[in-house]
Amino acid sequence: MDAELTTHFSHEANPTEALKAVFRRHASGVAVITTLDSEGKPVGFTATSMTSLGSNPPLATFNVARGASSWPAISNAGFVAIHTLGARNLELAKRMAADHTLRFVPEDWSAGPQGVPILHAATSVLIAKVREIHFVESNAIVVVDVSEALLGEPDDSLLYSQRAYYIPGSKLE
Amino acid sequence: MDAELTTHFSHEANPTEALKAVFRRHASGVAVITTLDSEGKPVGFTATSMTSLGSNPPLATFNVARGASSWPAISNAGFVAIHTLGARNLELAKRMAADHTLRFVPEDWSAGPQGVPILHAATSVLIAKVREIHFVESNAIVVVDVSEALLGEPDDSLLYSQRAYYIPGSKLE
Repeated sequence: MDAELTTHFSHEANPTEALKAVFRRHASGVAVITTLDSEGKPVGFTATSMTSLGSNPPLATFNVARGASSWPAISNAGFVAIHTLGARNLELAKRMAADHTLRFVPEDWSAGPQGVPILHAATSVLIAKVREIHFVESNAIVVVDVSEALLGEPDDSLLYSQRAYYIPGSKLE
Repeated sequence: MDAELTTHFSHEANPTEALKAVFRRHASGVAVITTLDSEGKPVGFTATSMTSLGSNPPLATFNVARGASSWPAISNAGFVAIHTLGARNLELAKRMAADHTLRFVPEDWSAGPQGVPILHAATSVLIAKVREIHFVESNAIVVVDVSEALLGEPDDSLLYSQRAYYIPGSKLE
Protein backbone atom coordinates (compact mmCIF):
# COMPACT_ATOMS: atom_id res chain seq x y z
CA MET A 1 0.00 0.00 0.00
CA ASP A 2 1.38 3.43 -0.83
CA ALA A 3 2.15 5.98 1.88
CA GLU A 4 -0.93 8.09 1.12
CA LEU A 5 -3.25 5.13 1.70
CA THR A 6 -1.44 4.07 4.86
CA THR A 7 -2.28 7.40 6.49
CA HIS A 8 -6.00 6.71 5.95
CA PHE A 9 -6.42 2.95 6.25
CA SER A 10 -5.22 -0.21 7.92
CA HIS A 11 -5.02 -3.33 5.76
CA GLU A 12 -7.02 -6.55 6.18
CA ALA A 13 -5.50 -9.20 3.92
CA ASN A 14 -7.77 -12.11 4.91
CA PRO A 15 -10.80 -12.14 2.56
CA THR A 16 -13.29 -13.49 5.12
CA GLU A 17 -12.20 -11.00 7.79
CA ALA A 18 -12.24 -8.27 5.12
CA LEU A 19 -15.91 -8.97 4.33
CA LYS A 20 -16.87 -9.00 8.03
CA ALA A 21 -15.00 -5.82 8.87
CA VAL A 22 -16.50 -3.87 5.96
CA PHE A 23 -20.09 -5.01 6.58
CA ARG A 24 -19.67 -4.01 10.24
CA ARG A 25 -19.48 -0.44 8.86
CA HIS A 26 -22.50 -0.79 6.58
CA ALA A 27 -26.14 -0.52 7.68
CA SER A 28 -29.06 -2.31 5.95
CA GLY A 29 -32.81 -2.11 5.87
CA VAL A 30 -34.64 -5.15 7.22
CA ALA A 31 -37.20 -7.18 5.27
CA VAL A 32 -39.07 -10.42 5.84
CA ILE A 33 -39.65 -12.69 2.87
CA THR A 34 -42.40 -15.28 2.97
CA THR A 35 -43.91 -17.92 0.73
CA LEU A 36 -45.78 -21.23 0.98
CA ASP A 37 -44.01 -24.58 1.09
CA SER A 38 -45.10 -27.63 -0.91
CA GLU A 39 -47.60 -28.55 1.85
CA GLY A 40 -49.13 -25.07 1.80
CA LYS A 41 -47.53 -24.02 5.11
CA PRO A 42 -46.03 -20.54 5.53
CA VAL A 43 -42.25 -20.21 5.56
CA GLY A 44 -40.16 -17.07 5.78
CA PHE A 45 -37.00 -15.38 6.97
CA THR A 46 -35.52 -12.04 7.90
CA ALA A 47 -33.31 -10.64 5.13
CA THR A 48 -31.00 -7.62 4.94
CA SER A 49 -30.27 -8.17 1.25
CA MET A 50 -33.53 -6.94 -0.31
CA THR A 51 -32.86 -4.29 -2.92
CA SER A 52 -34.45 -2.67 -5.94
CA LEU A 53 -33.03 -3.77 -9.29
CA GLY A 54 -34.89 -1.50 -11.69
CA SER A 55 -38.16 0.34 -12.06
CA ASN A 56 -39.04 -0.30 -15.71
CA PRO A 57 -40.09 -3.07 -15.43
CA PRO A 58 -40.18 -3.06 -11.61
CA LEU A 59 -37.71 -5.64 -10.30
CA ALA A 60 -36.21 -6.51 -6.92
CA THR A 61 -33.61 -8.99 -5.67
CA PHE A 62 -32.74 -10.74 -2.44
CA ASN A 63 -30.19 -13.35 -1.43
CA VAL A 64 -30.71 -16.61 0.41
CA ALA A 65 -28.36 -19.34 1.60
CA ARG A 66 -29.21 -22.67 0.00
CA GLY A 67 -28.77 -24.26 3.42
CA ALA A 68 -31.50 -22.06 4.95
CA SER A 69 -34.73 -23.64 6.22
CA SER A 70 -36.75 -21.52 3.77
CA TRP A 71 -34.66 -22.43 0.72
CA PRO A 72 -36.64 -25.48 -0.49
CA ALA A 73 -39.84 -23.42 -0.51
CA ILE A 74 -38.21 -20.33 -2.05
CA SER A 75 -36.59 -22.44 -4.78
CA ASN A 76 -40.02 -23.76 -5.80
CA ALA A 77 -42.03 -20.59 -5.19
CA GLY A 78 -44.15 -18.99 -7.85
CA PHE A 79 -44.77 -15.87 -5.77
CA VAL A 80 -43.22 -14.41 -2.65
CA ALA A 81 -44.21 -11.59 -0.28
CA ILE A 82 -41.44 -9.14 0.62
CA HIS A 83 -42.33 -7.20 3.79
CA THR A 84 -40.65 -3.97 4.83
CA LEU A 85 -40.39 -3.60 8.59
CA GLY A 86 -40.64 -0.67 10.96
CA ALA A 87 -39.67 0.04 14.57
CA ARG A 88 -42.86 -1.73 15.73
CA ASN A 89 -41.66 -4.97 14.08
CA LEU A 90 -38.50 -5.56 16.14
CA GLU A 91 -39.84 -8.72 17.76
CA LEU A 92 -41.04 -10.01 14.36
CA ALA A 93 -37.59 -9.41 12.81
CA LYS A 94 -35.94 -11.39 15.60
CA ARG A 95 -38.51 -14.19 15.48
CA MET A 96 -38.15 -14.58 11.69
CA ALA A 97 -34.40 -15.01 12.16
CA ALA A 98 -34.67 -17.56 15.00
CA ASP A 99 -36.07 -21.14 15.29
CA HIS A 100 -37.87 -21.74 11.99
CA THR A 101 -40.57 -23.89 13.59
CA LEU A 102 -41.75 -20.94 15.73
CA ARG A 103 -41.82 -18.16 13.14
CA PHE A 104 -45.53 -18.03 12.32
CA VAL A 105 -48.22 -17.32 14.91
CA PRO A 106 -51.73 -17.89 13.46
CA GLU A 107 -53.12 -14.46 14.41
CA ASP A 108 -50.16 -12.60 12.85
CA TRP A 109 -50.76 -13.41 9.19
CA SER A 110 -53.28 -14.35 6.55
CA ALA A 111 -53.17 -15.48 2.95
CA GLY A 112 -52.90 -12.56 0.53
CA PRO A 113 -52.75 -12.12 -3.24
CA GLN A 114 -51.44 -15.28 -4.98
CA GLY A 115 -51.90 -17.07 -1.63
CA VAL A 116 -48.65 -15.74 -0.16
CA PRO A 117 -48.50 -15.31 3.64
CA ILE A 118 -48.94 -11.64 4.61
CA LEU A 119 -47.71 -10.49 8.02
CA HIS A 120 -50.27 -7.93 9.20
CA ALA A 121 -47.87 -5.74 11.18
CA ALA A 122 -45.44 -4.96 8.31
CA THR A 123 -45.17 -1.39 7.01
CA SER A 124 -45.65 -2.62 3.43
CA VAL A 125 -45.59 -5.78 1.33
CA LEU A 126 -44.47 -6.37 -2.24
CA ILE A 127 -46.18 -9.27 -3.96
CA ALA A 128 -43.68 -10.51 -6.52
CA LYS A 129 -43.22 -13.37 -8.96
CA VAL A 130 -39.94 -15.28 -8.94
CA ARG A 131 -38.33 -14.59 -12.31
CA GLU A 132 -34.91 -16.22 -12.08
CA ILE A 133 -32.53 -17.64 -9.49
CA HIS A 134 -28.74 -17.58 -9.84
CA PHE A 135 -26.64 -20.00 -7.82
CA VAL A 136 -23.29 -18.71 -6.55
CA GLU A 137 -21.42 -21.25 -4.42
CA SER A 138 -23.87 -22.27 -1.63
CA ASN A 139 -25.96 -19.10 -2.07
CA ALA A 140 -28.75 -17.98 -4.36
CA ILE A 141 -29.65 -14.59 -5.81
CA VAL A 142 -33.42 -14.43 -6.35
CA VAL A 143 -34.75 -11.94 -8.94
CA VAL A 144 -38.44 -11.09 -8.77
CA ASP A 145 -40.96 -9.19 -10.89
CA VAL A 146 -43.08 -6.90 -8.74
CA SER A 147 -46.79 -7.37 -9.32
CA GLU A 148 -48.57 -5.34 -6.63
CA ALA A 149 -48.21 -4.01 -3.09
CA LEU A 150 -50.02 -3.70 0.20
CA LEU A 151 -49.31 -0.47 2.06
CA GLY A 152 -49.63 -0.49 5.83
CA GLU A 153 -49.29 2.11 8.57
CA PRO A 154 -45.96 3.97 8.09
CA ASP A 155 -43.30 3.74 10.80
CA ASP A 156 -39.59 4.45 11.23
CA SER A 157 -37.71 1.98 8.98
CA LEU A 158 -36.04 -0.85 10.84
CA LEU A 159 -32.26 -1.03 10.29
CA TYR A 160 -29.65 -3.67 11.02
CA SER A 161 -26.08 -2.66 11.75
CA GLN A 162 -23.28 -3.97 13.96
CA ARG A 163 -25.43 -7.03 14.88
CA ALA A 164 -28.16 -4.83 16.37
CA TYR A 165 -31.39 -3.13 15.28
CA TYR A 166 -31.78 0.64 14.93
CA ILE A 167 -34.13 3.27 13.57
CA PRO A 168 -32.90 6.18 11.43
CA GLY A 169 -31.74 9.24 13.38
CA SER A 170 -30.80 12.69 12.14
CA LYS A 171 -31.39 13.69 8.55
CA LEU A 172 -28.21 15.08 6.98
CA GLU A 173 -28.33 18.06 4.61
CA MET B 1 -58.25 -8.76 -0.59
CA ASP B 2 -59.91 -10.41 2.38
CA ALA B 3 -61.43 -8.33 5.19
CA GLU B 4 -58.58 -9.06 7.62
CA LEU B 5 -56.01 -7.62 5.19
CA THR B 6 -58.15 -4.59 4.38
CA THR B 7 -58.01 -3.51 8.02
CA HIS B 8 -54.20 -3.41 7.86
CA PHE B 9 -53.34 -2.37 4.32
CA SER B 10 -54.36 -0.32 1.32
CA HIS B 11 -53.80 -1.88 -2.10
CA GLU B 12 -51.48 -0.61 -4.85
CA ALA B 13 -52.24 -2.52 -8.05
CA ASN B 14 -49.79 -0.72 -10.37
CA PRO B 15 -46.47 -2.62 -10.29
CA THR B 16 -44.25 0.46 -10.81
CA GLU B 17 -46.07 2.45 -8.12
CA ALA B 18 -45.98 -0.63 -5.88
CA LEU B 19 -42.16 -0.79 -6.11
CA LYS B 20 -41.79 2.93 -5.39
CA ALA B 21 -44.20 2.92 -2.45
CA VAL B 22 -42.54 -0.06 -0.78
CA PHE B 23 -38.97 1.23 -1.22
CA ARG B 24 -40.07 4.54 0.29
CA ARG B 25 -40.53 2.52 3.50
CA HIS B 26 -37.17 0.77 3.27
CA ALA B 27 -33.81 2.29 4.29
CA SER B 28 -30.46 1.32 2.72
CA GLY B 29 -26.78 1.71 3.49
CA VAL B 30 -24.81 3.82 1.04
CA ALA B 31 -21.71 2.62 -0.84
CA VAL B 32 -19.55 4.03 -3.62
CA ILE B 33 -18.21 1.62 -6.21
CA THR B 34 -15.18 2.56 -8.29
CA THR B 35 -13.00 1.06 -10.99
CA LEU B 36 -10.78 2.17 -13.86
CA ASP B 37 -12.07 2.66 -17.39
CA SER B 38 -10.30 1.42 -20.52
CA GLU B 39 -8.16 4.59 -20.55
CA GLY B 40 -7.12 4.13 -16.93
CA LYS B 41 -9.34 6.93 -15.64
CA PRO B 42 -11.34 6.50 -12.41
CA VAL B 43 -15.09 5.97 -12.68
CA GLY B 44 -17.58 5.34 -9.93
CA PHE B 45 -21.09 5.76 -8.58
CA THR B 46 -23.15 5.85 -5.42
CA ALA B 47 -25.05 2.60 -4.84
CA THR B 48 -27.67 1.56 -2.32
CA SER B 49 -27.72 -2.04 -3.56
CA MET B 50 -24.46 -3.34 -2.10
CA THR B 51 -25.05 -6.46 -0.04
CA SER B 52 -23.23 -9.49 1.31
CA LEU B 53 -23.96 -12.73 -0.54
CA GLY B 54 -22.05 -15.24 1.58
CA SER B 55 -19.03 -15.52 3.84
CA ASN B 56 -17.53 -18.83 2.76
CA PRO B 57 -16.17 -17.91 0.27
CA PRO B 58 -16.69 -14.16 0.92
CA LEU B 59 -18.97 -12.75 -1.78
CA ALA B 60 -20.85 -9.50 -2.32
CA THR B 61 -23.26 -8.18 -4.95
CA PHE B 62 -24.38 -4.82 -6.26
CA ASN B 63 -26.71 -3.71 -9.04
CA VAL B 64 -26.05 -1.25 -11.85
CA ALA B 65 -28.18 0.10 -14.68
CA ARG B 66 -26.64 -0.72 -18.05
CA GLY B 67 -27.40 2.84 -19.12
CA ALA B 68 -25.26 4.30 -16.29
CA SER B 69 -22.09 6.24 -17.11
CA SER B 70 -20.01 3.73 -15.15
CA TRP B 71 -21.46 0.66 -16.84
CA PRO B 72 -18.92 0.29 -19.70
CA ALA B 73 -16.05 0.31 -17.18
CA ILE B 74 -17.83 -1.96 -14.69
CA SER B 75 -18.69 -4.45 -17.43
CA ASN B 76 -15.00 -4.74 -18.34
CA ALA B 77 -13.55 -4.47 -14.84
CA GLY B 78 -11.25 -7.07 -13.38
CA PHE B 79 -11.41 -5.53 -9.91
CA VAL B 80 -13.62 -2.97 -8.22
CA ALA B 81 -13.41 -1.05 -4.94
CA ILE B 82 -16.58 -0.98 -2.83
CA HIS B 83 -16.46 1.87 -0.30
CA THR B 84 -18.70 2.06 2.76
CA LEU B 85 -19.60 5.62 3.68
CA GLY B 86 -20.11 7.45 6.98
CA ALA B 87 -21.74 10.69 8.08
CA ARG B 88 -18.57 12.57 7.05
CA ASN B 89 -19.06 11.39 3.44
CA LEU B 90 -22.39 13.09 2.69
CA GLU B 91 -20.90 15.43 0.09
CA LEU B 92 -19.02 12.52 -1.52
CA ALA B 93 -22.23 10.43 -1.74
CA LYS B 94 -24.02 13.30 -3.48
CA ARG B 95 -21.12 14.04 -5.82
CA MET B 96 -20.82 10.37 -6.87
CA ALA B 97 -24.51 10.41 -7.81
CA ALA B 98 -24.36 13.67 -9.81
CA ASP B 99 -22.55 14.80 -13.02
CA HIS B 100 -20.19 11.93 -13.84
CA THR B 101 -17.52 14.25 -15.25
CA LEU B 102 -17.09 15.93 -11.84
CA ARG B 103 -16.99 12.90 -9.54
CA PHE B 104 -13.23 12.58 -8.96
CA VAL B 105 -11.11 15.33 -7.41
CA PRO B 106 -7.37 14.50 -7.64
CA GLU B 107 -6.62 14.98 -3.94
CA ASP B 108 -9.52 12.73 -2.84
CA TRP B 109 -8.25 9.40 -4.11
CA SER B 110 -5.23 7.32 -5.07
CA ALA B 111 -4.63 3.99 -6.77
CA GLY B 112 -4.89 1.08 -4.36
CA PRO B 113 -4.51 -2.71 -4.56
CA GLN B 114 -5.08 -3.98 -8.13
CA GLY B 115 -4.94 -0.34 -9.27
CA VAL B 116 -8.51 0.43 -8.24
CA PRO B 117 -9.32 4.03 -7.23
CA ILE B 118 -9.54 4.36 -3.43
CA LEU B 119 -11.44 7.30 -1.96
CA HIS B 120 -9.45 8.32 1.14
CA ALA B 121 -12.40 9.53 3.21
CA ALA B 122 -14.43 6.28 3.11
CA THR B 123 -14.96 4.31 6.33
CA SER B 124 -13.75 1.11 4.64
CA VAL B 125 -13.08 -0.35 1.21
CA LEU B 126 -13.52 -3.88 -0.11
CA ILE B 127 -11.19 -4.79 -2.95
CA ALA B 128 -13.06 -7.39 -4.96
CA LYS B 129 -12.75 -9.30 -8.22
CA VAL B 130 -15.71 -9.37 -10.59
CA ARG B 131 -16.84 -12.99 -10.71
CA GLU B 132 -20.01 -12.92 -12.81
CA ILE B 133 -22.56 -10.47 -14.14
CA HIS B 134 -26.22 -11.31 -14.75
CA PHE B 135 -28.27 -9.18 -17.10
CA VAL B 136 -31.93 -8.62 -16.18
CA GLU B 137 -33.75 -6.32 -18.61
CA SER B 138 -31.67 -3.10 -18.77
CA ASN B 139 -29.97 -3.82 -15.42
CA ALA B 140 -27.03 -5.91 -14.25
CA ILE B 141 -26.36 -7.81 -11.04
CA VAL B 142 -22.62 -7.88 -10.39
CA VAL B 143 -21.24 -10.68 -8.17
CA VAL B 144 -17.76 -10.17 -6.73
CA ASP B 145 -15.21 -12.25 -4.82
CA VAL B 146 -13.78 -10.29 -1.91
CA SER B 147 -10.00 -10.28 -1.87
CA GLU B 148 -8.95 -7.80 0.82
CA ALA B 149 -10.05 -4.63 2.63
CA LEU B 150 -8.82 -1.25 3.76
CA LEU B 151 -10.27 -0.13 7.10
CA GLY B 152 -10.54 3.61 7.74
CA GLU B 153 -11.65 5.74 10.65
CA PRO B 154 -15.08 4.50 11.87
CA ASP B 155 -18.07 6.83 11.65
CA ASP B 156 -21.87 6.62 11.83
CA SER B 157 -23.03 4.62 8.76
CA LEU B 158 -24.58 6.74 6.03
CA LEU B 159 -28.16 5.73 5.18
CA TYR B 160 -30.49 6.57 2.31
CA SER B 161 -34.23 6.63 2.86
CA GLN B 162 -37.15 8.66 1.50
CA ARG B 163 -34.79 10.39 -1.01
CA ALA B 164 -32.63 11.81 1.80
CA TYR B 165 -29.54 10.85 3.79
CA TYR B 166 -29.59 9.89 7.48
CA ILE B 167 -27.43 8.38 10.19
CA PRO B 168 -28.67 5.61 12.49
CA GLY B 169 -30.51 6.80 15.58
CA SER B 170 -31.71 4.83 18.59
CA LYS B 171 -30.69 1.22 19.09
CA LEU B 172 -33.75 -0.98 19.70
CA GLU B 173 -33.66 -3.80 22.25
